[in-house]
Amino acid sequence: MRKVLLCEPNISEGRQLDIVEQILEQIRRVDGIKILDINSDGDHNRSVFTYLGEPEPALKATKAMAAKAFELIDMTKHQGSHPRMGAVDVVPFIPVRGVQTEDAVEIARRFGKFVGDLGVPVYYYEDAATRPERATLPKIRKGQYEALEEKLKDPAWTPDEGPATFNPKAGAMVTGVRFPLVAFNVNLHTTDLSIADRIARAVRHINGGYRYVRAIGLELEGTGMVQVSMNLVNYAKTPIPRVLETIRSEATRYGVNVAGTELIGPVPLGALEEVLKHYLQVHDFSMEQIIETALLD
Amino acid sequence: MRKVLLCEPNISEGRQLDIVEQILEQIRRVDGIKILDINSDGDHNRSVFTYLGEPEPALKATKAMAAKAFELIDMTKHQGSHPRMGAVDVVPFIPVRGVQTEDAVEIARRFGKFVGDLGVPVYYYEDAATRPERATLPKIRKGQYEALEEKLKDPAWTPDEGPATFNPKAGAMVTGVRFPLVAFNVNLHTTDLSIADRIARAVRHINGGYRYVRAIGLELEGTGMVQVSMNLVNYAKTPIPRVLETIRSEATRYGVNVAGTELIGPVPLGALEEVLKHYLQVHDFSMEQIIETALLD
Repeated sequence: MRKVLLCEPNISEGRQLDIVEQILEQIRRVDGIKILDINSDGDHNRSVFTYLGEPEPALKATKAMAAKAFELIDMTKHQGSHPRMGAVDVVPFIPVRGVQTEDAVEIARRFGKFVGDLGVPVYYYEDAATRPERATLPKIRKGQYEALEEKLKDPAWTPDEGPATFNPKAGAMVTGVRFPLVAFNVNLHTTDLSIADRIARAVRHINGGYRYVRAIGLELEGTGMVQVSMNLVNYAKTPIPRVLETIRSEATRYGVNVAGTELIGPVPLGALEEVLKHYLQVHDFSMEQIIETALLD
Repeated sequence: MRKVLLCEPNISEGRQLDIVEQILEQIRRVDGIKILDINSDGDHNRSVFTYLGEPEPALKATKAMAAKAFELIDMTKHQGSHPRMGAVDVVPFIPVRGVQTEDAVEIARRFGKFVGDLGVPVYYYEDAATRPERATLPKIRKGQYEALEEKLKDPAWTPDEGPATFNPKAGAMVTGVRFPLVAFNVNLHTTDLSIADRIARAVRHINGGYRYVRAIGLELEGTGMVQVSMNLVNYAKTPIPRVLETIRSEATRYGVNVAGTELIGPVPLGALEEVLKHYLQVHDFSMEQIIETALLD
């Protein structure tokens, strides 16, 4: 089976598109890499690249991309509205197909070591974290680039790779492994936002709902509908149909029907497996039966 | 988008596996072809190869396969329980991804021309048929190999390609284009076969049901269940969820529940699109959002 790793680096340049292009070029020239999306935001002064490939080409492309970004981006001159602490700010590796979390962690660590050897402090997060207080990005990035020089003097913030000394031009980098997000919205036939709010609280983790659901209620102006807008952060452990049917059941309490749903952006094929099995009741189905998967082998 | 054509030739040799292997070798040596399945049946004295690739490699592999089969198989010596009229008996081309029916018909016609030029009478069937009475395989193959010499003298059976003269060694070939079949079974929590029979009649075309459904009722001995066993011959026009929900509704008349379903063998990704859209109510979803489809481009 062909293994597929998704990579989504966030770099601190979103205005000088000639620089973004030179950095992207490092990814493009690696064989076997498919770029799915490029997003440069001037206000944020930040670009996000989304690409995939087998783990080794993905690592190679990411190393080359990072080396060029550290060469061309100077954090001493960076301004932008998005939180950041480095020229290559955060680099998540996301297992998509045939890649175990531990295999992806190994790739992230090899990448981290490479960047550390370039003289840049590196922190591992999410599934690659070395200690619980480094598990989430906001905790590591707290205080941003401007606080980094002081932070590196604190033994609690000794980097996982690279020197514990401030690198003004590069800042610091965060890399690690996370599960693919599924952005899933459920629209409800009511204009009462409080119903969407209450349902969002019913399904989201922080209020006692499903462990891997983040949710908010939103108005959809001019549509006669409200929305429960969600990120499902682990579709394997909190699958789409379970969340949808819970929302449907909660909505029924208020006499409200589900008008429709939205899957936003890229969705891994694996996230759809449980949808098929649940609603078709097709207990023994394997995604390998899908004809097109033969082309992925 | 990478175009994908599935090809499923049936050849009249299922006993001498060294001959089958030499024929298969012609497919294997074409770059870009993936063989999904090989099935040789001694009683039928017939082999079915299932492989896919872009249209041009698929055509190239199929030509090479056929040329070798006509060289090695002698219909004057063929015996087997499955209906057949030629050494390369029937060759369906099946559009899977990014291939329109008319593009596949063009491939089938180029293949038919190639075989005709080898001196073998060729008939086009299904979506490649040149006249209504040649639309289905059983009509073309009626009387089988043994009737072919007489049949070719009848002006109504002038071949679409190749000579109207009997080729004893090769017989005749049928080729064309058909939609991918989906083999879909629904298991019911009852031991009453008559309920499965009645539901099969309710959903199948010949008794007034859905146009693209073939269905029979079956006992599943020792399981406490019966089955509505189906071929969905056009999943786009008669989609899976519509058939399942009709069966569920009919079963409810008898107080019987759906125990589960089965999707047998290869399933095109496109057949699952309607399942997602129907049950998730995700009206605007595109299968191109599935991350893995980027690898097919």
